[in-house]
Amino acid sequence: MKNISILGSTGSIGTQTLDIVKNNPKGFRIVGLTTNKNIGLLKKQISEFKPEAVAVMDEEKADLLKEDADVDVYPGIDGIIEIAKLSNADTVVNSLVGSIGVRPTIEAIKSKKNIALANKETLVTAGSIVMGEVRKNNVNLMPIDSEHSAIFQCLNSNKKNNNKSNDFNENISEVNKIIITASGGPFKDYTKEQLKNVTVNDALNHPTWNMGKKITIDSANLMNKGFEVIEAHWLYGISYENIEVVIHPQSIMHSLVEFKDNSTLAQLSLPNMKIPIQYALSYPKRFPLETKRLNLAEIKNLSFEKPNLELFPCLKYAYDAGKLGGTMPAVLNAANEVAVHSFLNKKIKFNEIPIIIKKMMDSHNVIKNPDLSQILDVDKKTKEETKNIIENKAIINN
Amino acid sequence: MKNISILGSTGSIGTQTLDIVKNNPKGFRIVGLTTNKNIGLLKKQISEFKPEAVAVMDEEKADLLKEDADVDVYPGIDGIIEIAKLSNADTVVNSLVGSIGVRPTIEAIKSKKNIALANKETLVTAGSIVMGEVRKNNVNLMPIDSEHSAIFQCLNSNKKNNNKSNDFNENISEVNKIIITASGGPFKDYTKEQLKNVTVNDALNHPTWNMGKKITIDSANLMNKGFEVIEAHWLYGISYENIEVVIHPQSIMHSLVEFKDNSTLAQLSLPNMKIPIQYALSYPKRFPLETKRLNLAEIKNLSFEKPNLELFPCLKYAYDAGKLGGTMPAVLNAANEVAVHSFLNKKIKFNEIPIIIKKMMDSHNVIKNPDLSQILDVDKKTKEETKNIIENKAIINN
Repeated sequence: MKNISILGSTGSIGTQTLDIVKNNPKGFRIVGLTTNKNIGLLKKQISEFKPEAVAVMDEEKADLLKEDADVDVYPGIDGIIEIAKLSNADTVVNSLVGSIGVRPTIEAIKSKKNIALANKETLVTAGSIVMGEVRKNNVNLMPIDSEHSAIFQCLNSNKKNNNKSNDFNENISEVNKIIITASGGPFKDYTKEQLKNVTVNDALNHPTWNMGKKITIDSANLMNKGFEVIEAHWLYGISYENIEVVIHPQSIMHSLVEFKDNSTLAQLSLPNMKIPIQYALSYPKRFPLETKRLNLAEIKNLSFEKPNLELFPCLKYAYDAGKLGGTMPAVLNAANEVAVHSFLNKKIKFNEIPIIIKKMMDSHNVIKNPDLSQILDVDKKTKEETKNIIENKAIINN
Repeated sequence: MKNISILGSTGSIGTQTLDIVKNNPKGFRIVGLTTNKNIGLLKKQISEFKPEAVAVMDEEKADLLKEDADVDVYPGIDGIIEIAKLSNADTVVNSLVGSIGVRPTIEAIKSKKNIALANKETLVTAGSIVMGEVRKNNVNLMPIDSEHSAIFQCLNSNKKNNNKSNDFNENISEVNKIIITASGGPFKDYTKEQLKNVTVNDALNHPTWNMGKKITIDSANLMNKGFEVIEAHWLYGISYENIEVVIHPQSIMHSLVEFKDNSTLAQLSLPNMKIPIQYALSYPKRFPLETKRLNLAEIKNLSFEKPNLELFPCLKYAYDAGKLGGTMPAVLNAANEVAVHSFLNKKIKFNEIPIIIKKMMDSHNVIKNPDLSQILDVDKKTKEETKNIIENKAIINN
């Protein structure tokens, strides 16, 4: 029996995680839940899963919930960190969206919790610090993400003698490269001209995955893939030169690992986030899961092509930021977060997102080996500055 | 350093194994070699690899070699078994062709050797006995075969706590099914009429793999895939109901394992036998291997379709023989060995191969739980009877 806390239990990953808990009452038990402000849904979750404590980011909503909830309610980011550290939890699922998720991950690791990580910003902005804490505290950090879960399973095929999920050192010495697949999004075959006139609705219409708005936009311009490259670098200790991205429109093959003997392992399934979520919780075991099964003869074709970095420069910027290191990935992430938000609010065009990111990266002086407060400071300042640039329409639209 | 003996060192698998040994002088050393009758090549191998002893199946050729070889030379099947048991060997590569390979495998296992197995007949005809000896003697049996090596690597991704290659029990309880891929051979899209007029040259023209004659014919009518189904059953202790065959003409994805959570692992590479050969020897490590690397964006498409059991009934007969068990797979194999030989000698037509096999299977009374002598006896008698039927043209050609 594993005791689980979920940070962000009312979102897409959070509710799917609760479905899995419900279907495995002998395997998992909920001890903590958090929401941003959806206390209506959180109330239902409290009555169904009986957590010991919950947190609500929005402090007014937290007060409202306190009045009629039969459970400890903690407000704000400190409340979320309280849930991340709950003494009875073995595993913390972090499905928060945005850089708000970084501190709770680190606090949970310091409290010796295993982490099931869906929050991208944790590794993109603070990978070095997070992985240092994972090693120091000897916990498992499992990815909740079809690509990194795929890589994890493929690397596992080459594991020698231990059960620690993040000890891939011996393994990585036998790896040629990691190949991360990308659907290519809805604009894969667009021209540069067509890309200029993309609407919000066009961009939210992802061909294979049904996800939140922010990540859907990130997928449409391959920034999401860039984040995954940076995450893979930290999760598996592999250099950027040995991480490749290949476009695979069907989203069936979720990623691959090529070993030194040129044997390549791949993980496949129909697109379904429940598979990586459940595996992150059940590892090293696998529990049965009722989802539609893959039938290759029915699918007929799996196709592959090179990504177009000229059309989608965000992927290139992510490699650049990763290689430059230090605070640069935090700049990439912060500028992107604001730019995507502005695109969703129709303040900028789709093809202005990479222009804004490039501008912010070019003007940043990298701090090498930053501590967490420096990273969070760069995150905050970059967001402010990006907002200013957008408000002042200081973008050259070419 | 592993000490290796190769049974069948002058054949296709044998010479490729020696290439691998040559490229890994710190990893592998040769202690024993055998040939059927190619003493010219064996002499060169002796002078290059300096084995302690060799064997030659053909006794006259053995005598010839003795005259000028500076090494112990053993004649006949007893000589081959002598090499299989050499005290200094850790691992025996069995790349003999035909049911002649069964006894040497068993004798090597009884002498506590790890086995790298290319000889199909070992598991097809005597799977129960061989796997019983593997468990009793606590040795590793590694497959030299792209499909079974693929399955092995995929299953490994789910291994828990040990290094014994054949202990898949806990693992198999978490498996839904194994999916073995087949190129489909050169006649995949033929009609029944077209199949009647297939020549030996047509059948030897395999689209993706360059192999020996017998196995190329077996591939062209999917009998080889049937053998692999039976081998997979014994190697991994999985029921026939949970072994599936899918046609994949590019021969890039070599097989897959679907786990209970509907996550599927696959192993891929360009078609190259050196990958499974080297892995069988280097396991649990992987050594670098200089072969052309897979580039999915260059390959562009991987396609899949259902096998046509009406056109290729051999695959169905193999499932039938496997499920009936006992001595039936030995009948399947023996009848096929003679039928393919007769087709290569232009005594029968391509589409008569399955007719002959069916006839022999239908007339056999299965011995349940046979011992090795009963299996070898059925093998011998079935071959004689199949020859008689062919000589007497007692085949109904429909």
